Formats: sequence, structure tokens, C-alpha cells
Amino acid sequence: MNRSDPLKRIRVVLVRPSHPGNIGAAARAMKTMGLDDLVLVAPQSFPDPAARARASGAVDVLERARVVATLDAALADTVLAVATTARERELRHEIVNARAAAARLVQDAAAGTVALVFGNETSGLTREEAGRCPLLACIPANPEYASLNLAAAVQVFCYELRAAAGAGLPERTDEFAPATLGEIEALVAHLEQTLIAVGFLDPAHPKRLMPRLRRLIARSRLEHEEVSILRGILAAVEAHCRR
Amino acid sequence: MNRSDPLKRIRVVLVRPSHPGNIGAAARAMKTMGLDDLVLVAPQSFPDPAARARASGAVDVLERARVVATLDAALADTVLAVATTARERELRHEIVNARAAAARLVQDAAAGTVALVFGNETSGLTREEAGRCPLLACIPANPEYASLNLAAAVQVFCYELRAAAGAGLPERTDEFAPATLGEIEALVAHLEQTLIAVGFLDPAHPKRLMPRLRRLIARSRLEHEEVSILRGILAAVEAHCRR
Repeated sequence: MNRSDPLKRIRVVLVRPSHPGNIGAAARAMKTMGLDDLVLVAPQSFPDPAARARASGAVDVLERARVVATLDAALADTVLAVATTARERELRHEIVNARAAAARLVQDAAAGTVALVFGNETSGLTREEAGRCPLLACIPANPEYASLNLAAAVQVFCYELRAAAGAGLPERTDEFAPATLGEIEALVAHLEQTLIAVGFLDPAHPKRLMPRLRRLIARSRLEHEEVSILRGILAAVEAHCRR
Repeated sequence: MNRSDPLKRIRVVLVRPSHPGNIGAAARAMKTMGLDDLVLVAPQSFPDPAARARASGAVDVLERARVVATLDAALADTVLAVATTARERELRHEIVNARAAAARLVQDAAAGTVALVFGNETSGLTREEAGRCPLLACIPANPEYASLNLAAAVQVFCYELRAAAGAGLPERTDEFAPATLGEIEALVAHLEQTLIAVGFLDPAHPKRLMPRLRRLIARSRLEHEEVSILRGILAAVEAHCRR
């Protein structure tokens, strides 16, 4: 168990999955988000070639998956279990959305193994099974068609878990150097001079042209090297005009 | 077009999908989150029984899907296109995560149709295709296995779009009309022609000039009227060169 990574302490439990292909797709969805603890409660068929095929590069997750007979067995060592549901249920439990559930799972993973439980593709979890889980969670969906398939639901929850764990949200990747305001002012002056040279700007009647172009330039957050390119273009235009 | 619901103005574009089953699964993922505008660019097989089977209750989305020959045709009437990528790319465009991309798409949907673009299952988008989109977005994933399948990626993005739309529609802070991507492409073509005319761009040795300028233009979020001004400047330069 990797103590430093909460995602390694979050277990995905599939209860009575009917289609082995969905088990494979769920394993793939888990691995893409950095989860690898899969437990299957009374699967209809497992192992199965269809599961391996859909798992793609996540067969290692399948190979480590454990099969148990009951949900209780899957949850015995956990400190929190969240039951997923697509339906409005009788409100015997708190029901939260996927984002809030992910935050809670990641938080509680600091204390031990936590579980996210998905029911059968058609029938979901029984009332008794859902009742085993302190928290119910659903994915906000189109009320007219809320039918995510099992692997899609696993993907969305695992995505939220990774986001909640703060793992690898990419920073802005702009590695280029921004232009200084001095460079911008020199560019604006050069642009104005060129616009006069080509007859687009009449200095006697400038109207609102330069303020509009300044507004555009300000919004563009120009880089140092881009200013050089643009001034190179202006110089080429001027040289061409003088010929 | 439903003006009150931004999700109805968000188009999903699948570029050269290989497997019709994935088209159906993508349609299902879209509908569960309330999206219904699907455009297919040169699909390998469509319509196809495998697409209908995987679409489940979302066959209506498939039946309304449009097939076009090129990405440009899919994007011509949009005001923003976001290219999805699983890979680190050469950093010619801003790259953001799925949550930030969803917020931006929902925001810009107030001004017109916006698009979310997914590449081929194996090869993704070409560099040229990604370059047509002002913004690049990725799903933060396990760096050791970032292989979400196509339908799973569509599901995660559509989930974030629904979450972003539900969080209240942020107002655009400027009152100007954004340029369409068709107008942007016409501007880029005009700019290239002018740069050749003034001798700044050698078509035999173009180097990386146009991609760099495209990157700058993409970041600038040009307005309709600004495109007119810039094309007016280009026309003035050309007229001056001919004298």
C-alpha cells in the first residue's frame, strides 16, 4: 500500500457485473486515473477474454482484482464506502454529487482504505447493499436520460477522485517570456508609423484606430519574441513601401 | 437553437473515428449530460449498426448527427473550438485542463456555437487540425497510463460541461461579438498572402512563421470588427505595394 498516494487507498467495488467487457473497461478507467484496487462481488463471468480485451493496457489491474461473494466481504476492511446510484432513492442516507463524494473519499483515505461501490448494470444496488454504505453519491445528469454505462460512471468518479487528490492538474504551460511594457509601447509606436506610411491612418483624423489596436494588443498578452516578429513585419512593410 | 441552454450550443466533433461503436458510445455520453449536437468528420463507417447498439437510448443524437469531409467544415460557424489531446504537444497553443476548458466553452456559448474536438482513437488529431482550434485541453490522467478510450474522454468532458453550465452562466465581460473561426481562417490566409507580397515570408522556406502567428491570433480572441480592421490594414499594405 502506497501511503503517500490516496488514490492507492481507494477501492472500486463492482457488485454483480453482468458483462465482463464492462469489468475490463472499468479497470482501464481506473488505471487512467491512477487507481488500481478492484474488487468484484459475484461477477457473472470472471476472468473472461472480453474483460482482458476491453482493459487494453490495464490488464495488470484485472490480474490483481479480487473476487468475493458478498459486498460485506468487499468492504470489511474499509473506513468509508460510498454507494453510487443513478436514481433518486428514498432518502435514508445522505446523497451527494460525484465531486463532493470524491473529496470525502480522498479525505478519509488518509485514515485507511475507502471504497466506491457500483451496482449491476441493469438493476443497480439493492436497498440492502446501498444501506451498507454510509454515503450515497450520484453523477449529475440529464434528467430525461441519465443512463451512463457502468464504465462511463467509473470513469467520471475516478476522474473526480484524481482531481480531488490534486494529482497532476497541469499548470499553465506557457513557458515563453512575456514582452515588457516598454517593448509593447515601442511596438505600438512602430505600428502607428507604418499605418501612416501605408496610408491606412491619417494623422490629421486618427479617429479611434490606435485605441482599438491597443486594446487588441493588450488582450493578446504578447511575448517578447512575438514583438520581435511583429516589428520585423512592420520593418518589411516599410522597406517595401520605400522601394 | 435553444438560447437558454448553453449545452445546446456546444458541438462535439469526432474526427475520423475508426470504430462505429465509439460513435454510439459518444452519443450516449453526450445525451446523459444534455448535449445533442454531434458532427462526424470523415468517419470510417457511419451510419452503422454497431453505433446504434452502443448508443442505447441516444439513437436520436446519432440520427441528427451530421457527416462532413473536413474539420474546417465542422468548425466554420463556431466562435470557439477546443481540441482535446492526451499528449503533451509542442507548445504552440495554450493548454488547459478539462474543467477550465468546460468553463470557457460554456462562457463562450453565450455568443454562439462552440465546439469540442476529439481526434482518431489511435492517432488523435494532426498538428494541423489541433492548430485550427484556439485552445487545447487535456484530461489530467495517470502519466504512466493516460489512455482513456474515446467514449470515456467524451463522457468526462461532457460531465464537466454540465457541471460548468450548472454553476451559473458567467457573463462575458466585453460586449463585442467574437469572430467566427471561418473569419479567422480568412484573416490568416490574407495575412500569409500579404507577408509574401512584402517579402517577409518566403513560401519556399516558410519556417515556423505562420504557426507562430496562428498561436498569437488564437490567444488574442479576436472580435468580428477587429478582423475587419486587420484585413483593412492588410489591404492597404497590398495596395501600397502595387503602386
